[in-house]
Amino acid sequence: MTILPGHPFNAFSDDEVAGDKFREECGVFGIFDHPDAGVLTTLGLHALQHRGQEAAGIVTHDGRQFHNERHIGLVGDNFTKPAVVARLKGRRAIGHNRYSTTGAPVLRNVQPLFAEFAGGGFAVAHNGNITNARTLQRVLQRRGSIFQSTSDTETIIHLIATSDGISLVDRIIDALGQVEGAYSLVALSDKKLIGCRDPLGVRPLMLGDLDGAPVLASETCAFDIIGARFVREVEPGEMVIITEAGLESLKPFGPQPSRFCIFEHVYFARPDSVLAGTSIYEVRKRIGAELAGEAPVEADLVVPVPDSGTPAAIGFAEASGIPFDLGIIRNHYVGRTFIEPSDAIRHMGVKLKHNANPAILKGKRVILVDDSIVRGTTSVKIVQMMRDAGAREIHMRIASPPTIDPCFYGVDTPEKSKLLASRMTIEEMAEYIRVDSLEFLSIDGLYRAVGETRRNPDAPQYCDACFTGAYPTELTDKDGTGDVRQLNLLSDTG
Amino acid sequence: MTILPGHPFNAFSDDEVAGDKFREECGVFGIFDHPDAGVLTTLGLHALQHRGQEAAGIVTHDGRQFHNERHIGLVGDNFTKPAVVARLKGRRAIGHNRYSTTGAPVLRNVQPLFAEFAGGGFAVAHNGNITNARTLQRVLQRRGSIFQSTSDTETIIHLIATSDGISLVDRIIDALGQVEGAYSLVALSDKKLIGCRDPLGVRPLMLGDLDGAPVLASETCAFDIIGARFVREVEPGEMVIITEAGLESLKPFGPQPSRFCIFEHVYFARPDSVLAGTSIYEVRKRIGAELAGEAPVEADLVVPVPDSGTPAAIGFAEASGIPFDLGIIRNHYVGRTFIEPSDAIRHMGVKLKHNANPAILKGKRVILVDDSIVRGTTSVKIVQMMRDAGAREIHMRIASPPTIDPCFYGVDTPEKSKLLASRMTIEEMAEYIRVDSLEFLSIDGLYRAVGETRRNPDAPQYCDACFTGAYPTELTDKDGTGDVRQLNLLSDTG
Amino acid sequence: MTILPGHPFNAFSDDEVAGDKFREECGVFGIFDHPDAGVLTTLGLHALQHRGQEAAGIVTHDGRQFHNERHIGLVGDNFTKPAVVARLKGRRAIGHNRYSTTGAPVLRNVQPLFAEFAGGGFAVAHNGNITNARTLQRVLQRRGSIFQSTSDTETIIHLIATSDGISLVDRIIDALGQVEGAYSLVALSDKKLIGCRDPLGVRPLMLGDLDGAPVLASETCAFDIIGARFVREVEPGEMVIITEAGLESLKPFGPQPSRFCIFEHVYFARPDSVLAGTSIYEVRKRIGAELAGEAPVEADLVVPVPDSGTPAAIGFAEASGIPFDLGIIRNHYVGRTFIEPSDAIRHMGVKLKHNANPAILKGKRVILVDDSIVRGTTSVKIVQMMRDAGAREIHMRIASPPTIDPCFYGVDTPEKSKLLASRMTIEEMAEYIRVDSLEFLSIDGLYRAVGETRRNPDAPQYCDACFTGAYPTELTDKDGTGDVRQLNLLSDTG
Amino acid sequence: MTILPGHPFNAFSDDEVAGDKFREECGVFGIFDHPDAGVLTTLGLHALQHRGQEAAGIVTHDGRQFHNERHIGLVGDNFTKPAVVARLKGRRAIGHNRYSTTGAPVLRNVQPLFAEFAGGGFAVAHNGNITNARTLQRVLQRRGSIFQSTSDTETIIHLIATSDGISLVDRIIDALGQVEGAYSLVALSDKKLIGCRDPLGVRPLMLGDLDGAPVLASETCAFDIIGARFVREVEPGEMVIITEAGLESLKPFGPQPSRFCIFEHVYFARPDSVLAGTSIYEVRKRIGAELAGEAPVEADLVVPVPDSGTPAAIGFAEASGIPFDLGIIRNHYVGRTFIEPSDAIRHMGVKLKHNANPAILKGKRVILVDDSIVRGTTSVKIVQMMRDAGAREIHMRIASPPTIDPCFYGVDTPEKSKLLASRMTIEEMAEYIRVDSLEFLSIDGLYRAVGETRRNPDAPQYCDACFTGAYPTELTDKDGTGDVRQLNLLSDTG
Repeated sequence: MTILPGHPFNAFSDDEVAGDKFREECGVFGIFDHPDAGVLTTLGLHALQHRGQEAAGIVTHDGRQFHNERHIGLVGDNFTKPAVVARLKGRRAIGHNRYSTTGAPVLRNVQPLFAEFAGGGFAVAHNGNITNARTLQRVLQRRGSIFQSTSDTETIIHLIATSDGISLVDRIIDALGQVEGAYSLVALSDKKLIGCRDPLGVRPLMLGDLDGAPVLASETCAFDIIGARFVREVEPGEMVIITEAGLESLKPFGPQPSRFCIFEHVYFARPDSVLAGTSIYEVRKRIGAELAGEAPVEADLVVPVPDSGTPAAIGFAEASGIPFDLGIIRNHYVGRTFIEPSDAIRHMGVKLKHNANPAILKGKRVILVDDSIVRGTTSVKIVQMMRDAGAREIHMRIASPPTIDPCFYGVDTPEKSKLLASRMTIEEMAEYIRVDSLEFLSIDGLYRAVGETRRNPDAPQYCDACFTGAYPTELTDKDGTGDVRQLNLLSDTG
Repeated sequence: MTILPGHPFNAFSDDEVAGDKFREECGVFGIFDHPDAGVLTTLGLHALQHRGQEAAGIVTHDGRQFHNERHIGLVGDNFTKPAVVARLKGRRAIGHNRYSTTGAPVLRNVQPLFAEFAGGGFAVAHNGNITNARTLQRVLQRRGSIFQSTSDTETIIHLIATSDGISLVDRIIDALGQVEGAYSLVALSDKKLIGCRDPLGVRPLMLGDLDGAPVLASETCAFDIIGARFVREVEPGEMVIITEAGLESLKPFGPQPSRFCIFEHVYFARPDSVLAGTSIYEVRKRIGAELAGEAPVEADLVVPVPDSGTPAAIGFAEASGIPFDLGIIRNHYVGRTFIEPSDAIRHMGVKLKHNANPAILKGKRVILVDDSIVRGTTSVKIVQMMRDAGAREIHMRIASPPTIDPCFYGVDTPEKSKLLASRMTIEEMAEYIRVDSLEFLSIDGLYRAVGETRRNPDAPQYCDACFTGAYPTELTDKDGTGDVRQLNLLSDTG
Repeated sequence: MTILPGHPFNAFSDDEVAGDKFREECGVFGIFDHPDAGVLTTLGLHALQHRGQEAAGIVTHDGRQFHNERHIGLVGDNFTKPAVVARLKGRRAIGHNRYSTTGAPVLRNVQPLFAEFAGGGFAVAHNGNITNARTLQRVLQRRGSIFQSTSDTETIIHLIATSDGISLVDRIIDALGQVEGAYSLVALSDKKLIGCRDPLGVRPLMLGDLDGAPVLASETCAFDIIGARFVREVEPGEMVIITEAGLESLKPFGPQPSRFCIFEHVYFARPDSVLAGTSIYEVRKRIGAELAGEAPVEADLVVPVPDSGTPAAIGFAEASGIPFDLGIIRNHYVGRTFIEPSDAIRHMGVKLKHNANPAILKGKRVILVDDSIVRGTTSVKIVQMMRDAGAREIHMRIASPPTIDPCFYGVDTPEKSKLLASRMTIEEMAEYIRVDSLEFLSIDGLYRAVGETRRNPDAPQYCDACFTGAYPTELTDKDGTGDVRQLNLLSDTG
Repeated sequence: MTILPGHPFNAFSDDEVAGDKFREECGVFGIFDHPDAGVLTTLGLHALQHRGQEAAGIVTHDGRQFHNERHIGLVGDNFTKPAVVARLKGRRAIGHNRYSTTGAPVLRNVQPLFAEFAGGGFAVAHNGNITNARTLQRVLQRRGSIFQSTSDTETIIHLIATSDGISLVDRIIDALGQVEGAYSLVALSDKKLIGCRDPLGVRPLMLGDLDGAPVLASETCAFDIIGARFVREVEPGEMVIITEAGLESLKPFGPQPSRFCIFEHVYFARPDSVLAGTSIYEVRKRIGAELAGEAPVEADLVVPVPDSGTPAAIGFAEASGIPFDLGIIRNHYVGRTFIEPSDAIRHMGVKLKHNANPAILKGKRVILVDDSIVRGTTSVKIVQMMRDAGAREIHMRIASPPTIDPCFYGVDTPEKSKLLASRMTIEEMAEYIRVDSLEFLSIDGLYRAVGETRRNPDAPQYCDACFTGAYPTELTDKDGTGDVRQLNLLSDTG
């Protein structure tokens, strides 16, 4: 799910505070016919917490009615209390994690969204972004549909509600047939658990099994925590419909070649997950090894920017024979209010999260491995911190190609002009960050690390638009004629 | 606004805790073109707090966009903070108080409700109840409208959104033409403040003026607090449209004789308000005088059940020459958690609010004046408390006729079978309450007190359905065929 | 208990917001050997809530150990929750209400205070004020005692802790023998419930009985709510020691004539309490009658300033034959944040609490009855409000003599220079308040109303220092040499 | 600071939840004469957060008065808000982090503790534990001292308050001369910042300098975050007195050989700190290397238990030539309520924090490196999780000797009977944990890693009592005659 552009929260965005990273915006989970459906969904969302920390929601169905819990904050802060657990009755559940913004979040936007149709109640949660949502919203409003949020997920719900289809499945197919963009969604009606992935399969969705109960999740790490078995990926364009009668698979949208998000391999997914048939941890180590091959340098230490750079740094160290060491120590106790600190503390920036380890850096030539560079502001500070700690040379190696374009498929990215690599050459970037050398992994190196021979420029095997600008779908809202009326959204302050 | 029957909150209703009274469910306020619109609305809602204590909401428009604050709790606990005041920018505002239930309220149901139409944003707040709301809701859902609440107010909004009317005013007229029941509503678009009263004028709506700025409010006491001048009542069936060009009055629904709620005079309205051209305080004193004339008794003291019985008791004392005295002392510090107390405290019931004044009751013959009897549970306890304090005789006099039927026009009443007067004769009630005598004001006595000669049984001058069962409108939802699907409402627990 | 002068909270005091009244600062309660001791103490404190609204605390003893609950806010908001009730185990309890200031209160100062001595645990709660507390505190600090608060109650505890007495009772007698001022205290050790009143009996303390369980309370209304029987007052200078063996009475301090606070009759006590053998409600009606006799005036209505002026207004109306009417309507929904409102709302002042009832005031000559005038700021606003509502003449009658001196015995009063009557003649006051006439009850009239023939100037039967300046004790701290070091108190912000 | 044994909170201790670790109980910080003293203390405490996560407090002095903030929760959740920053005025400050228990913490016990003496205000914060605190407390109570907490820190304050010494420094020396045990304390009077370490120097205390402003902190990482320079350690038995005149050093307690806590090297201190002249990170890598030498095993991978086992695992991998890999992935989003979860979630235990990385474990022989084994409960679960993920062999290597005795010097440890190594042989432990082999570092190996040749059994160079039972001080409270009266502590629930 994505808050549409123009949303007031965007004003609060502050990449520096959040870590100068692209951020995955959502994780989804669903389970059918298990006595502990609510608790298992809580655990699944906890395992997927890295995909969204702002808020979470769970909807269960107990055979008679729906139950709903939506909370701002971490899953483990809100959903494990006995009273909450008790309220989430039923053997069927879906859940959703939402990304963290620095502004005040509103419960109204927390998924799963729920609606009463003529045909019954229906809850849906969604990872991705509909790139023609505002265009569709205008059409729907003209017909009399009333929107409660600017969420693209709500657009899907209104399309379903106003569809002429008879059955719920027909209506969903009708609705999804009108949307463009990327989505992996889970939905719950009073009879069905439905999982669906857009025709390109940009965002992940996995199918698992817990003692006969089907499970859906964004990543396999959510199966591990509950002891479920990984069965297979939901395929691009596939809709799985789970009822008491079993699992049915539809492919209503016609075959298209997959364009899975390659950045899931670089950064978003947890290292212990298996995506697209490959261990993320091993892909990242291979990325490090590719990088060592493409951009070797003589040095004393390989130091990761923790924790996202660590697997690539281990791979780089193994391939280069240069020792791996923790030259930066992470402080795990970064509180919530560091997010809106006093000015006196704001300038501390990166030091609130990281400290250089002076004893091992002093006088050393260091290879610093990070997964990507977004705005570069954090890199500047980390490099300065390492120089203050006595590092003699700093050679920065980035475990992905330069990020030159924003993502419109459910990832929180700055606009193009804010991306360091879109406005500087690599030499300029090295100078800006003040490193002795700077090298990025090549796009073909990245494709090699994920198991391809090389990128096919005519039909790329992955969505790599952030590195190449090759967007796999129309961007209707973005490329529209601009006559979009500014939404006057209420800021709800309950 | 009314939560429809079938809403889970009804399960929490507990008349004993709330005082064994009919409860007015809402108060509304609006102001146009005043620099302090937000603060003045806060003050107006504070003056109308007796019409709803659960929650309140204010929407302002600053010429460019809407601002919204909705809070559970008292106006004076939430809307006077400098930060809230600062957020309610603009020269136009509407506000709403909502009644107090004992269950957990949800912000989602707090008014004003707001919607984005194709035609722009629109906020509406409503006092009353639409008696065909569920019937309309089913039709709208079949068309694809999605409901967020079970509020009848939301039904009005969807009717407006799906109307074929071109202008907003046309759409509102179209929508209100389809609804049955009682409503006094205020609405705010980006250009207009609109006030409207149902054709029977069941619920009040007043027009005032503050230095040229038009003001709308449920009662005149909301004008007093801000120093506004009372201009006139909005007439039954009238729609006033306030723009920068001035005030326009429409009567789109054809003329009908007024049926104003007579219980506003008995209990709901504040004694310092002027409704239907009459001071409420003086009406209540006249009620007491009528009662003294209809049901005299020899006694030493006239004692009110505070505070609602006080004006009638003063009137009774003056007319009868029997001294008025405070035989029951009210504790004003009844906290919120007495609403969900431990069992050990629950049985204290009425003593948490009232104490008999033993020094003046001992050995006395007392005329106890209350405004009405609903379930009678509180009356039983008050009488027992007075007997424990030594009262020798207790003659109860009720400042209204027996309440034998529920209200469907925006008042929280028990169902008919719970109303003491619907299942007992007056003699049985006297015995149940354990008073030496019990008398109610006659219906004609009540009409005399409000200035009529007598009730016209063929065309009653007021809505007096709670005393007579003579409902002035269809009750479509209530009298429907019963095939209404049970709504599976989500309990939102943010 | 009193926060000593010099305490930072004094800076926040704002009589206007709090109602321009003297404020009683505490209520105490205790019960011994009843299975529901905790709940009964909760109810007793609720009945005494008018004596202190800032915070409350209860300590129980279950035969083995103490249990403690202290909460900022109303008793009914904090002590009735099942979890709190469950924690207050045991058959013995004491409790305390604390007055409301407008500043941020701190839990550390909430009573009962508790201490571990060598001799065991000990909790004490106290109504009154020790007038040599700071002087004693300096001595104790020099000995090595460490103070946690500036509460005079803590001074008593340190005196007990450092006493050479062997038994707890000996230590308490030793400690109280050193203090000057006014106190009614209740204390709980692991064996005893102790009640004690200072030798002059300035503050009240009542002894009751609930089915054999002894009860102590500041006022008899706390007995009424739990159904306890009023036995007698604890006498001035008396210490009652309640153990499983029964009740023992000591008079360790030698006989002195009583000097009970006459302002309890005028304003502090609840009208349904019986103090010094008299019904407060009846005393106040007699005050009104005396006032009618001393200061008659031709008028149309007698109107009370609600609620404190009501009994005197009823007495005035009865004695004068002029009708009693509610010319001012009180809004009971004044929220907590009106206490720290935005500037835009602050100037509303009295209108947040009161509205003139225009229908009955218009063109009338009004006798306005209030209990007292402190700073006069509220009176000015009420009179203005009544004039705006159309009152033709306003004759103010005050149910007590002019208040010309502050209280040092446990009442929150402004300093002398802020008391209107200490710096103006009655004529000047009438002009300042803008009334057509202003009269106060004479001091002898007040003594007559409480049952004396007249005040004995050589040996006043009551403490009437606020009217006469005749303080019955030394004021050691106040009259000291002024070399008191300013305490650098920590503002605790938990 | 330590809550004394017998404290009710101990009942809530739950090592499983907290991670089955010994836990350092406090961190201290102080700074003198810097315009940003409050903010710098906040940052210093943030860097020391690993030494205590339950609560934190800061006291500043602005030349005229003290300011105090104490909050339950993380430094970064409470102390960075602009309002808090603004309240902590002044150029001098001390601060304290307190360890995390799983029970409800109380603000009353949060340090720094503050007291008003005859000589002025005084705040003190303390890392360590006084082993004769209860014995001293009994003596003080008999003299009339009243204790507010069971904190041993309060004992020190009462000793200072009741000392006959003239100057504050004399009093502190007098007080500390009476205490036994371990302490590193910082204290602030209106003139002085004082730092002091017990004669054995068990707990660390460092002296730094920020542009001329002296700084005190438990670890050097607190200097790094504010850019201060590390000057030297405060020596065992040294008292540094910092005033506007400069820094004075006293050694009032006579020379004793140092007995610094060796477990600080193993686990407590942050890896980027320098203690006792050595980089903690490098010591831990040397520990890993020693372990590889002492207990080699043929395997495919070296896997750390993150994060505490990581440096030793890197050292082991380097020394053994076996690849280092992240076989366990840590979930950083463990919420606060996982601490009191529903039963349904409790049994998840370790999986909430860690997930095995199945892709790299499957079929592998793994060397699992952890810093220590306390109860062993977590080890059992981690090993099971790794086996479920497919590990073929698991060889556990522990970076310290077996922990066989509890700590009484400010560390939260289970009692001896709960320590796995105190009741099982290594073979039994291996079987219990279900590993293929289990080896601990030898005590001499540990001494070698910290730079000694070997442990001197006659005069150990460190406090290693948890490994050897050789306590360097008397344990008066523990070894007392047991006539200690059970304290009836109030559970304060504000």
